[in-house]
Amino acid sequence: MATEPKDAPIQDAVDFIHHHREEILEGYFKLLSFPSISADPAYAGDVKKCAEWIVGELKRIGFENAKVIETEGHPVVYADWLHAGDDKPTVLVYDHYDVQPVDPLHLWKSEPFEAEIRDGKLYARGASDNKAGVWGNLKVLESMLSADGKLPLNVKIMFEGEEESGSPSMEPFVAANKELLQADIMLNCDGGFDMHNPQLAYAGRGIISAEVTVKGPRADLHSGGFGGVVRNPLHVAAEIIASLHDEDGRVTLPGYYDRVREIDETERARITAGWEAETEKNKKTAGVDFTWGRSIAPDAERATVLPTLDVNGMWGGYQGPGSKTIIPAEASFKVTMRLVPDQQPPEIAQIFKEYVEGFATDTITIDVLVRQEGWPFLLETDGDYLAAVQAATEATIGKPAQLVRTGGSIPILGMFNRLMDMPITGFGYGDGENIHSPNEYIDVEHFFLALQAGLRMYHNLGAVEK
Amino acid sequence: MATEPKDAPIQDAVDFIHHHREEILEGYFKLLSFPSISADPAYAGDVKKCAEWIVGELKRIGFENAKVIETEGHPVVYADWLHAGDDKPTVLVYDHYDVQPVDPLHLWKSEPFEAEIRDGKLYARGASDNKAGVWGNLKVLESMLSADGKLPLNVKIMFEGEEESGSPSMEPFVAANKELLQADIMLNCDGGFDMHNPQLAYAGRGIISAEVTVKGPRADLHSGGFGGVVRNPLHVAAEIIASLHDEDGRVTLPGYYDRVREIDETERARITAGWEAETEKNKKTAGVDFTWGRSIAPDAERATVLPTLDVNGMWGGYQGPGSKTIIPAEASFKVTMRLVPDQQPPEIAQIFKEYVEGFATDTITIDVLVRQEGWPFLLETDGDYLAAVQAATEATIGKPAQLVRTGGSIPILGMFNRLMDMPITGFGYGDGENIHSPNEYIDVEHFFLALQAGLRMYHNLGAVEK
Repeated sequence: MATEPKDAPIQDAVDFIHHHREEILEGYFKLLSFPSISADPAYAGDVKKCAEWIVGELKRIGFENAKVIETEGHPVVYADWLHAGDDKPTVLVYDHYDVQPVDPLHLWKSEPFEAEIRDGKLYARGASDNKAGVWGNLKVLESMLSADGKLPLNVKIMFEGEEESGSPSMEPFVAANKELLQADIMLNCDGGFDMHNPQLAYAGRGIISAEVTVKGPRADLHSGGFGGVVRNPLHVAAEIIASLHDEDGRVTLPGYYDRVREIDETERARITAGWEAETEKNKKTAGVDFTWGRSIAPDAERATVLPTLDVNGMWGGYQGPGSKTIIPAEASFKVTMRLVPDQQPPEIAQIFKEYVEGFATDTITIDVLVRQEGWPFLLETDGDYLAAVQAATEATIGKPAQLVRTGGSIPILGMFNRLMDMPITGFGYGDGENIHSPNEYIDVEHFFLALQAGLRMYHNLGAVEK
Repeated sequence: MATEPKDAPIQDAVDFIHHHREEILEGYFKLLSFPSISADPAYAGDVKKCAEWIVGELKRIGFENAKVIETEGHPVVYADWLHAGDDKPTVLVYDHYDVQPVDPLHLWKSEPFEAEIRDGKLYARGASDNKAGVWGNLKVLESMLSADGKLPLNVKIMFEGEEESGSPSMEPFVAANKELLQADIMLNCDGGFDMHNPQLAYAGRGIISAEVTVKGPRADLHSGGFGGVVRNPLHVAAEIIASLHDEDGRVTLPGYYDRVREIDETERARITAGWEAETEKNKKTAGVDFTWGRSIAPDAERATVLPTLDVNGMWGGYQGPGSKTIIPAEASFKVTMRLVPDQQPPEIAQIFKEYVEGFATDTITIDVLVRQEGWPFLLETDGDYLAAVQAATEATIGKPAQLVRTGGSIPILGMFNRLMDMPITGFGYGDGENIHSPNEYIDVEHFFLALQAGLRMYHNLGAVEK
């Protein structure tokens, strides 16, 4: 750290971090000691205690209106510092303080909620995903406030406590607090800070998950006695599934592609570059080539800007050893669809439901349960705010983040896109591994480097002309 | 029993049974005390002890060459009495002395291997299926031998010990013992004696059971990252299944119907009558109407003389609560096909295998495991031997058995049809319920009535001109 080049406007804040390194780690250990597991109701009290502790920290470093806001689920931490002046931008900082469950516990080499540093790595549940972002932002903002007595821009903090369990309360929370949350730019900090191959997911697909149940005879029937005269629900389920794609791999639901947005050459080049950077790694993961659907569009586009439909599970009838001569009474399958702009999840869910229900007959009933509807998201791909974040990354590690379009879904970003009237970009602090797995860790030196990048980022954002 | 009409030629034998009623029940209790569960290797010793005890009984009543013949699985009981003269027919009597497992044991009201009579019903595992046939034949033959010192025809006994576990050793046993087993007529006694609606299944379908495994990526993949570029094994499994029938319900396997035998008007009338007699009961069981495939042929024919294909179970991917966004690494399903004369199971199995394997692609492998190949069977529908059996039934309960063609499979009869050069008909002794279930029983009075029918049957068979 001593070799770090001087950086005049943020030097005092950088020095503050250097001088408080031990306190920063101690505080991080404390934050990581809360078992804020949102998925397990048994930990609801710990989730709340964690929120309250963060509120205390925000107050201590000089934030105002710091409070735990109750929702139907776990609470949101809110706080603001709005004294930079009306000519300065306001940023809404989003992250989450809840964590994944820890099982299988026996695979952890140290207690998941008693952080431990081994070989320069800090091990604890949430160390990387994503208390790193919560703590990173707090420490960056504290160092600026301590060094300068002020921030270079107006800041609103929103840390949720349900991200790892699907954010069920966030949509009503956001809808009810639009004014409180309004800003010029939203900063999603739920991500990592990869020193070597920094990436920023600027777009992702929406998602619909659904479950279909096909029911036929009253009970499992003898296939000898009833074969040929009673329609088999497994056959109907298979027919439905088989009919959902044409032989090239296109989804056949009526109107499925009607609202799919064309991409321009800039976008095409961007996603191609992003895909190619990962192709070898992805092939290793899959163990197969990506030939499926190749006649429709190049691999990079099918994986990102075209919608998909996959059956994630199917079951019905006898699954044990040997054979059992039955016509099963029912069959079920689970589906997820990945949606892209400007497909609308409620519309597609309805199309799916009607299409699938159309396979019902006089002896077959079909139930479709739509479980989740998540919207696609699109963050900034240019503009001053993104440039400010990228410049901070480049100044810190020598290169900006590569903009990648993920085929996956971050429903909460789709929701922010849809409900909030502001652009969104992202910046992450964690550089570690094993998120959602045993022995989650963050690299300690990289975390301190990310704090420097964070300082530069807030500084740069403060310089953006509104 | 005292009101039973006198029946001159068999009267002494009838009297013998009347006078030995208690001994007959005591012996039956003893036979039922052997836990001859063929499916569970833990009972192999008991199966053998049961066989040895029966051999002892056969010797005691005057049979010759009585022996336990070892097979690769459980032993066969063989014995003969061949002193009726060359001008008299020889009958080969087939039945099985093994029984189904007894679980769930807690649902039994008395010990399954300690027979108990309650309200005129004798409860024990095997009481109906099918130690009734083993004991019934022994008692009928004993009474004739005791009363007359001889039998009206030549008799060969073959009781197997593997019927309830699929008779894996019977085909090699029969192939190796054709001369020993040769007779003029084979009598299948593995069935019941329903006093009210006697039925005789004179034909049944063959069966092929198979399991298909469809493999795709190396492991379950994230459906966001790989949706659209990696082919989903569940989709391929569904395509295979969906393609196996046309929209009318015909099986689409190439050549599937090529060898299906046309039926004549007599047969059509017979199966229609048999089907109609059961339709209401069957509809209640199924809970749905039998509309599937109705454009192909009438219900009775689709259920009996046309072949079928049913998927009995399918599974792959995530089956738990909620959703899991994966493309599963593999999918599997189990199939049974019901075959009719003159389809050949090995040929159809090969057609199925090749057809299904044809769905393999550059990223999808397909394995087909053919588990069982059972041949369809056709017993006597006219002729003197059947008439002799029917006359015995009619003389005893006032009507002959209705000839019914079952859609189910009795692979061992198909095997006898194919390997043995003799006609087959059937006669059963049991009149009870809960076969294969807890609290299996036989109605005691009906069993004694069945013994009288058995006496008449052997008498009538002995009168048939060779």
